Amino acid sequence: MTAMQSIPGVDRSKLQGDFDALAALTEPDRPWTRRSFTSLFLQGRDYLKRRFEEEGLSVRIDPAGNLIGRWNGTLEDAPVLMTGSHSDTVPSGGRFDGTAGILSGLAAIRALKLAGYKPQHTIELVDFLAEEPSEWGLSCIGSRGMAGALTAQHLSLQGPESESLHDAINRIGGDVSQLVAARRDDIDSYVEIHIEQGPVLEAKQIPIGIVTAIAGISRVRIRFEGVAGHAGTSPMDMRADAALAMAWFTLAVRDAACAVQGKGHFTATTGVLTIEPGGANVVPGASEAIVDIRAEDDEMMDLFIDRLEVTANAVAAREKCQVTRFDRLSKTRAVACDPALRAVLDDAAASLGLQTLPLASGAGHDAAFMAQITRSAMIFVPSREGKSHTPEEWTDNEAMALAADVLVSALVHLDSAPRLPAD
Amino acid sequence: MTAMQSIPGVDRSKLQGDFDALAALTEPDRPWTRRSFTSLFLQGRDYLKRRFEEEGLSVRIDPAGNLIGRWNGTLEDAPVLMTGSHSDTVPSGGRFDGTAGILSGLAAIRALKLAGYKPQHTIELVDFLAEEPSEWGLSCIGSRGMAGALTAQHLSLQGPESESLHDAINRIGGDVSQLVAARRDDIDSYVEIHIEQGPVLEAKQIPIGIVTAIAGISRVRIRFEGVAGHAGTSPMDMRADAALAMAWFTLAVRDAACAVQGKGHFTATTGVLTIEPGGANVVPGASEAIVDIRAEDDEMMDLFIDRLEVTANAVAAREKCQVTRFDRLSKTRAVACDPALRAVLDDAAASLGLQTLPLASGAGHDAAFMAQITRSAMIFVPSREGKSHTPEEWTDNEAMALAADVLVSALVHLDSAPRLPAD
Repeated sequence: MTAMQSIPGVDRSKLQGDFDALAALTEPDRPWTRRSFTSLFLQGRDYLKRRFEEEGLSVRIDPAGNLIGRWNGTLEDAPVLMTGSHSDTVPSGGRFDGTAGILSGLAAIRALKLAGYKPQHTIELVDFLAEEPSEWGLSCIGSRGMAGALTAQHLSLQGPESESLHDAINRIGGDVSQLVAARRDDIDSYVEIHIEQGPVLEAKQIPIGIVTAIAGISRVRIRFEGVAGHAGTSPMDMRADAALAMAWFTLAVRDAACAVQGKGHFTATTGVLTIEPGGANVVPGASEAIVDIRAEDDEMMDLFIDRLEVTANAVAAREKCQVTRFDRLSKTRAVACDPALRAVLDDAAASLGLQTLPLASGAGHDAAFMAQITRSAMIFVPSREGKSHTPEEWTDNEAMALAADVLVSALVHLDSAPRLPAD
Repeated sequence: MTAMQSIPGVDRSKLQGDFDALAALTEPDRPWTRRSFTSLFLQGRDYLKRRFEEEGLSVRIDPAGNLIGRWNGTLEDAPVLMTGSHSDTVPSGGRFDGTAGILSGLAAIRALKLAGYKPQHTIELVDFLAEEPSEWGLSCIGSRGMAGALTAQHLSLQGPESESLHDAINRIGGDVSQLVAARRDDIDSYVEIHIEQGPVLEAKQIPIGIVTAIAGISRVRIRFEGVAGHAGTSPMDMRADAALAMAWFTLAVRDAACAVQGKGHFTATTGVLTIEPGGANVVPGASEAIVDIRAEDDEMMDLFIDRLEVTANAVAAREKCQVTRFDRLSKTRAVACDPALRAVLDDAAASLGLQTLPLASGAGHDAAFMAQITRSAMIFVPSREGKSHTPEEWTDNEAMALAADVLVSALVHLDSAPRLPAD
């Protein structure tokens, strides 16, 4: 490894200006909203394209609809170093969720250019199309495309005004007929800066999170059935109240999830819960819920869900109810971040005197799809009070700039070797 | 007290025929539905009017919209003996709820007539208007009217197609301008036969329930607020999950209600429960519920609700949440049935060799309003599996006929004295 060139920190003021400019491109009635495929989204991309070009990047939209700024390296055929994230948002939240990775990547490139740095590897900055769940019912559309994971079924999904995803991608500048060319095999590393969306870094006062893995997500739908009855005339000791079985169950879900803490990232949440028939004067005859489970360890996930079914039957029996449904609605496996790439990020932070914390991502990211085709890793920055997907989502500009500084250092390090050994 | 005339049992076959005929007058898609003020309801009343007249009763509709069949007594100015109930139903349930009191009352009168009985007191058989919660948001409309408890505010309530309750009562044959004349002060006793709507009589295999009191009803709305968060990124030990506070609360409501068992009728039910925002990937930030509490003892009710608020704050603290709402939405006091009248009913059953059980009514009834203007009591008949307000609501014809036999005996007893001493 050669001695690395020292690059000054990124321009804080320009970084701040970019966040403010993109934030201004929002639905006025529900900040900060810039939904994928909308005209606001396209206005955001026009802004990004101009800024990319101002830094001397050549800008294109790939067949999958990803906006890519390219800085050619001096070594022909050297694999690409890629960074970025996404500029689309969920409704009402997304001042930083997504934009963080693009704008801090741009700040890093700006800092390298200003220092007269000449990369050996080509560096690409990407705005992945539609990372958030879109109106077409699909998330991570652009990174799926780049990973060759967009299927014909996906492309036939219908969105607003019955537009197919196929047509929508073409409308915003992609070219689905050339989708095979969107699949990349020339990337050495993908590094994504993202807000944590949780409270851990802030609580521990650590500026840089190095993501160990992107948790797998399972969803389970459970239904208890008891006997509906008149609230006034059903004696307390003769009831089979399905809401009470559900009460025991939600508490048990939490307790069981707490019990596996310390064995990697693990959460279990009952976020959807209904009782039937839902009348003030009726003993609930049925209750239904969806449990969201996230685990860094796939085996732990499977074990947890098996145990949950046993627990469900036990609490049902306690309330003279029955479990009439226990369906695993969805299941995505955990994706580990590349250990060698994590080490590069850790070293880069250390070289700047910044403390790091290894932590898993409970949310999904484009980096998970990129891991199918290249080394993939993520840097997390603190989220104020852990809030995300709300208008209050916030990360201080200086915290964001520190992550961009780490990225600068990491890019220089990655660029210094034609190819780091794959792990 | 004079020796009483012995009257043969009521005509089982005609009783059955009346139930079948009224049941046929239902919305075809959701038996057994005959909502108050609808054309089906008016068809039901036409049937009742014809049947009343066939038994020689003179039929009128009073100013409050109650259908009344009258059998004049031989003693002028003797107070009226009244029996009856209501012919309107809740949606999807009401084959017996209400009709039981009218049709068994008719069967009793038929039996008395057949036996050549000549009452000293005038006997009236009433179909109270709209006992069930109506589309005007009010229940017990007719019995309120007879008790002088219908207010101007009630009359201005708006129902379907913005029709006022005032206009609706006039439309079905009442005369609101004469409402003051609907208020009765000439009634000696009101006895109502009703299905139990609960499982107690069936479970104990006792044919006749003598109602001790109609429970008071309170409704409390409670709201817990915690902190909404991302289900994947909020660590289990840093959450304030409002659904978990609610889970503890619903279990505590049940436990507390069970603890007051044996001190008279007492139930507490959490029948309405919602969590917010209700997304599968969001930790619930708020939860809201309505608790329905029924008590024979008003003091016990008040004490229970006071304690519930303490419990709510305790479980909220356990989950780092807050109680942001604890509102007593409604409160009706318990109504005791008249002890002397209960004794008459008990003796009447005993004279027929029928076992009785004193029990409170957890549901509201017209008899509670009648208690404001006269002695009021109720006979309960067993409900199969305690089911009510569902299509499966069922009472065997013979069980109904036995209650009608008890009513016959009680009417003869009440008629034998010009006036029983008021308790």
